[in-house]
Amino acid sequence: MKPKLQTPIIIINFKTYLEATGTRAVELAKQAEKASKETGIQIAVAPQFCDIKAVAEAVEIPVYSQHIDPIKPGSSTGHVLAEAVREAGAVGTLINHSERQLKLADIDAIVKLANEKSLVSCVCTSNPPISAAAAYLNPDIISIEPPELIGTGIAVSKAQPEVVTSTLRLVRKVNNEAIVLCGAGISQGEDVSVALRLGTQGILVASSIVKAKDPYTIIREFADSAQ
Amino acid sequence: MKPKLQTPIIIINFKTYLEATGTRAVELAKQAEKASKETGIQIAVAPQFCDIKAVAEAVEIPVYSQHIDPIKPGSSTGHVLAEAVREAGAVGTLINHSERQLKLADIDAIVKLANEKSLVSCVCTSNPPISAAAAYLNPDIISIEPPELIGTGIAVSKAQPEVVTSTLRLVRKVNNEAIVLCGAGISQGEDVSVALRLGTQGILVASSIVKAKDPYTIIREFADSAQ
Amino acid sequence: MKPKLQTPIIIINFKTYLEATGTRAVELAKQAEKASKETGIQIAVAPQFCDIKAVAEAVEIPVYSQHIDPIKPGSSTGHVLAEAVREAGAVGTLINHSERQLKLADIDAIVKLANEKSLVSCVCTSNPPISAAAAYLNPDIISIEPPELIGTGIAVSKAQPEVVTSTLRLVRKVNNEAIVLCGAGISQGEDVSVALRLGTQGILVASSIVKAKDPYTIIREFADSAQ
Amino acid sequence: MKPKLQTPIIIINFKTYLEATGTRAVELAKQAEKASKETGIQIAVAPQFCDIKAVAEAVEIPVYSQHIDPIKPGSSTGHVLAEAVREAGAVGTLINHSERQLKLADIDAIVKLANEKSLVSCVCTSNPPISAAAAYLNPDIISIEPPELIGTGIAVSKAQPEVVTSTLRLVRKVNNEAIVLCGAGISQGEDVSVALRLGTQGILVASSIVKAKDPYTIIREFADSAQ
Repeated sequence: MKPKLQTPIIIINFKTYLEATGTRAVELAKQAEKASKETGIQIAVAPQFCDIKAVAEAVEIPVYSQHIDPIKPGSSTGHVLAEAVREAGAVGTLINHSERQLKLADIDAIVKLANEKSLVSCVCTSNPPISAAAAYLNPDIISIEPPELIGTGIAVSKAQPEVVTSTLRLVRKVNNEAIVLCGAGISQGEDVSVALRLGTQGILVASSIVKAKDPYTIIREFADSAQ
Repeated sequence: MKPKLQTPIIIINFKTYLEATGTRAVELAKQAEKASKETGIQIAVAPQFCDIKAVAEAVEIPVYSQHIDPIKPGSSTGHVLAEAVREAGAVGTLINHSERQLKLADIDAIVKLANEKSLVSCVCTSNPPISAAAAYLNPDIISIEPPELIGTGIAVSKAQPEVVTSTLRLVRKVNNEAIVLCGAGISQGEDVSVALRLGTQGILVASSIVKAKDPYTIIREFADSAQ
Repeated sequence: MKPKLQTPIIIINFKTYLEATGTRAVELAKQAEKASKETGIQIAVAPQFCDIKAVAEAVEIPVYSQHIDPIKPGSSTGHVLAEAVREAGAVGTLINHSERQLKLADIDAIVKLANEKSLVSCVCTSNPPISAAAAYLNPDIISIEPPELIGTGIAVSKAQPEVVTSTLRLVRKVNNEAIVLCGAGISQGEDVSVALRLGTQGILVASSIVKAKDPYTIIREFADSAQ
Repeated sequence: MKPKLQTPIIIINFKTYLEATGTRAVELAKQAEKASKETGIQIAVAPQFCDIKAVAEAVEIPVYSQHIDPIKPGSSTGHVLAEAVREAGAVGTLINHSERQLKLADIDAIVKLANEKSLVSCVCTSNPPISAAAAYLNPDIISIEPPELIGTGIAVSKAQPEVVTSTLRLVRKVNNEAIVLCGAGISQGEDVSVALRLGTQGILVASSIVKAKDPYTIIREFADSAQ
């Protein structure tokens, strides 16, 4: 069965950063787990495919895949099978991240597939209407990330609050259950508290944590600000 | 550094078969290792991304990735980083499998990337001219698999020997070093010996082993026929 | 400015049929124009890119492109520029046809681009939730076509009326203005009248007209049934 | 049948520039025709799909498509059919332009398709090994364009002469018949004569002509330098 989602939630996307590859993926996940246990805030991590198993064995916090393909078991060499990430220990998956965009019909198919395989589905979107479109496909989580702010250190919650609020307004017209997160540029605790005050239920972050000299301090700051 | 390639070589592609996912991937790899040790024939296995680490920790035979992306570390969520598969324990990678076809420029980039990261590069091709084209990009291995025979049980080496011989002829015009394999439909030991007699240096197989009731027996039969 | 949309509307997709290529595209468009003038029903045609100009010069009925790319003028060799199809005489475009599926973000970008360039936007979808998702992107037309029925002669309006009605219900929750069409398998006049009775405002058709011995008779039958 | 290729040849790629769209495509093609007739140098033009027919009707010089898809007539909405560009008046096609890159197997399929449909095939490549790989697929023309120089005004023939010469060396190992062109950054007559002196049989150009205040003067300068 799917893990229970608890809000606010912080999802850390490890992307393909070397700082979060292999043994460093496990280390980073442990620091996230430490901050999660200390603060009571749910923190999930999304390492690379190759690292899912080692990370899931090392920590108790939820592990997400960064992507799965809309395929059935069989002849799909080089693709990512829901069953494989599930058996490796993932309990959820990002879908349609701005660095791995998908066809509309595939997003629909993958959300359904994730449901069947008991994986939490987190669809990433880039603007309010696209978020609302995604909301109609009934994912568990929708995460809005304006691509132009990703990696800039300019937080969406502060630079474009209207993007966040109009996303929430449009999504809620058709979907009262999906958890709505925001991401892009989140680099300080205050960015997190502003995001929550705007009405989101958490954040999706990457570089500000993964590339930090002391990731634990940042994760902890974000988790503290989420309380 | 790259592992030494020894011929004849048998590469087993686990595809996305459930029979070769997770713990069953490890089991299957162990049977391949057993047959390899008993016969002295090099046998490599290509499990799914999520399973590379567990397989590589469980066996001493070479483990290949099924694909890597032409990317540098950083912002490529949901993609497959050479460094990640390397650290997980892979020593090589399939490239351009017929189920994961790539742009020409990306094949070139990935072969170079594999070289830089000390991964054996095995480019899969579907006909003689495409094989020869691939030969010019200097991969370590070229594996010809006519897509119409994949999974049929009709062996390329017996049904289309001229595809194999003309591939060898065209490839050798420009490349004397690449190992040339053939695949598609290989289901009996005789298919293997015919393939070697035609001049190939091994085979790439999948369903006949992965979906067998007793994979070890088939692997062993193939390895015996390769001697 | 965009042409006025009048309902019911019949859009004929010429696909890449030889029977609707080049001079035969012009002939077919003339027959559609004849049926349109005689019945007063708006009939639009969607020929291949190369044929847009000749068709638009030969007839007065609306001409649609089969696709446009989400690009600006400049360096996009081999892509389809909105300005180019507009200048050639198209007044609208299909978007995300099941044979030319697009990323969610690209559908959003193309709908906006079509608006800017005064092209009618007709987004094709394959099931009710995807239709509703598309509705949130505010295209002028949404056309639902279950891919498994395309080209079968089994009309969606008769075989899967609940697909049509639930599409209408979901779309109308968020969008009261978009014209909703259905397609796939429409082969008789009755299929058209059933579609309209279910609440759609027209149909998107292809093979039953393009491959007919006497296309005019079929177009006329469809138009008569739409009255 | 295919048009006779005469060398040296200049191919002008109109890309998706507004300056070469619609009526301006026809105007530009007429200036190319004028320069071709005056100098005796073969000049071909590659307008957008929508403009092929009007351009081909207005001039006698060869017209190329910018791309065709590896499809048969039928159900390929939004794709580019060889038969359609042929009937519109194109006598050749660019393939795998750096702005429209293709899978290796599709390049092979399109070169064969072009042959069947009597279209000149011009495969674009980005470095010497890729050019040699393409040479094995037997296109009529191979055009090397290092992507990093496209649109810069820094001519490949002057900035990277070794790219041109090593392309020629590698290609000629396996293919004595294909015409070899170079492109990227060609902006003066001298760039053309240097390209020919290095051994190429012509050039592929775009921005320096399309975006020129007086395109005719530049085309004429290039053609004069090719003599």
